[in-house]
Amino acid sequence: MDKFMQAAIDEAKQGLAEGGIPIGSVLVYQGEIIGRGHNRRVQSGSPILHGEMDALENAGRQPASVYKASTLYTTLSPCSMCSGTILLYGIPKVVIGENQTFQGEESLLQSRGVTIDLVHSQECIDLMNNFIRDKPKLWNEDIGE
Amino acid sequence: MDKFMQAAIDEAKQGLAEGGIPIGSVLVYQGEIIGRGHNRRVQSGSPILHGEMDALENAGRQPASVYKASTLYTTLSPCSMCSGTILLYGIPKVVIGENQTFQGEESLLQSRGVTIDLVHSQECIDLMNNFIRDKPKLWNEDIGE
Repeated sequence: MDKFMQAAIDEAKQGLAEGGIPIGSVLVYQGEIIGRGHNRRVQSGSPILHGEMDALENAGRQPASVYKASTLYTTLSPCSMCSGTILLYGIPKVVIGENQTFQGEESLLQSRGVTIDLVHSQECIDLMNNFIRDKPKLWNEDIGE
Repeated sequence: MDKFMQAAIDEAKQGLAEGGIPIGSVLVYQGEIIGRGHNRRVQSGSPILHGEMDALENAGRQPASVYKASTLYTTLSPCSMCSGTILLYGIPKVVIGENQTFQGEESLLQSRGVTIDLVHSQECIDLMNNFIRDKPKLWNEDIGE
């Protein structure tokens, strides 16, 4: 497993251990993680802190030149909010753990020139399947359903 | 001026008074404001708290049924991040103060069935033109340029 995807999975597991939704993300620039995060809907009562958003928030304010040379790793296919944020900042590449349990806006991203690398991680799939089985209502809330 | 757009403008002005970017937003459900906010890039060092995101964050966790019967008011045409968030939660209507100083993702929103009401507010235009003139670098950072 790529060390950056592993770091995103570690974030997802930390979120699960906190009683939250197991989705994690890291932002990588020049071979270093500059922001890491996980979904904080439960922990912070936040409707906007998906894993990707938390990673970007924790990276802090960055110049456009940094985003445009960064890669975002996320354990799950990014929803429209997180995809829109990727487009806002011009992040050119997204590495996705899996898209079997949720299909995000990969087509939109690709249509705008973003490179998608889909890892098909069984560990990511298992994390989400177990979570969705245990807490379907919480999951539906997180995806606006 | 519609009282809800006025509330969004009041938020934008509050942000400006705090040294921030003058964009405000309110989320309205059943004739009441359930969340209000303004851009907090400067105040909170946040790359994700645009005005619309701050309003949604301040509304807290809501069931899908609330979002799907709400209207989002924003002083400025929503960027791809905020538009993606509108799509995630299925907010059916967005009232926009102006889109002359920044053209967001109105076409994407409309293609997904979101109703757009563009107010063409001179007050909103003036707020942004003055801000962009005074702090062009900060503005470019906020839109990933």
